Amino acid sequence: MSKHRHTLSVLVQNEAGVLSSLSGLFSGRGYNIESLTVAPTLDPAFSRVTIVTFGDDAVIEQISKQLNRLINTIKIVEFSSEDCIDREFVLCKVNVKEETRSDVLRVVEVSEGKVVNITPRVYTLQAIGNESQIATFIELLRPFGIKELVRSGKVVISRENEFINVKQNVGI
Amino acid sequence: MSKHRHTLSVLVQNEAGVLSSLSGLFSGRGYNIESLTVAPTLDPAFSRVTIVTFGDDAVIEQISKQLNRLINTIKIVEFSSEDCIDREFVLCKVNVKEETRSDVLRVVEVSEGKVVNITPRVYTLQAIGNESQIATFIELLRPFGIKELVRSGKVVISRENEFINVKQNVGI
Repeated sequence: MSKHRHTLSVLVQNEAGVLSSLSGLFSGRGYNIESLTVAPTLDPAFSRVTIVTFGDDAVIEQISKQLNRLINTIKIVEFSSEDCIDREFVLCKVNVKEETRSDVLRVVEVSEGKVVNITPRVYTLQAIGNESQIATFIELLRPFGIKELVRSGKVVISRENEFINVKQNVGI
Repeated sequence: MSKHRHTLSVLVQNEAGVLSSLSGLFSGRGYNIESLTVAPTLDPAFSRVTIVTFGDDAVIEQISKQLNRLINTIKIVEFSSEDCIDREFVLCKVNVKEETRSDVLRVVEVSEGKVVNITPRVYTLQAIGNESQIATFIELLRPFGIKELVRSGKVVISRENEFINVKQNVGI
């Protein structure tokens, strides 16, 4: 059996109880959700859920089929890294001292991040990127002392391709 | 009874079933979750969940108390807009024509966004900001034709204040 990370994008009706039954399908099989984001689409009657989970391909396929059968599910797509653009962001507080301040700012600069709040001893930073860019940003800051860190979880959008029309639209 | 939007930041153990029981507390009362993000913290044994919901203050307080009693909940904080920095991001595909291309790029520029993919007729864009900045970004792009839009949901971090030490640390 082959275990991989899976990224699912699920279009659902924006109603109470949808998230609970959706996440229940994973926990019912003992599968942990690594990250999940859900927010309304352009049409607020619908929400899009992005789920990252790790596990056996066959089990994920079974879960996908069950997701499809949920009354509030409109559409479900599994993305590979080739057919989508993935982004996540992180907000983090880093300790700064007189002698490390410029080094912290250099990390922000090379990562195309931003300083969103400053106090004499702590900078609050944001950065957005794909998984490896965010991992690098965090590793570069770790030596300075990360006081607090919050990440958004992965969000994906299908890669637009006007020439080869593959999995182009996930929905609304 | 006063109804408001509420932003809850919940630190939980990173285990299967936590998200399901957490979201079940909302749906059990017929409360819809507007947006939710969950991702691991610096210590992968824990995850942080950010929930935005709309409802009666007293009911949200009851849900918070029940959340606190869940075995996997470590800490829960409700944030007001004054004591946190909030960010969300959006990925969207906008139709472009020869005559609108520079207008679309101007919106990206003033919004401090980024073009992440280009085809002759569609630009895929990203932007990060607080709620009103993201709402503005979307409204500015709407006239060009938004083909697809995915948003991350709100993520918050406590506002650092070295002078008045209020609700400074949510946890890890």
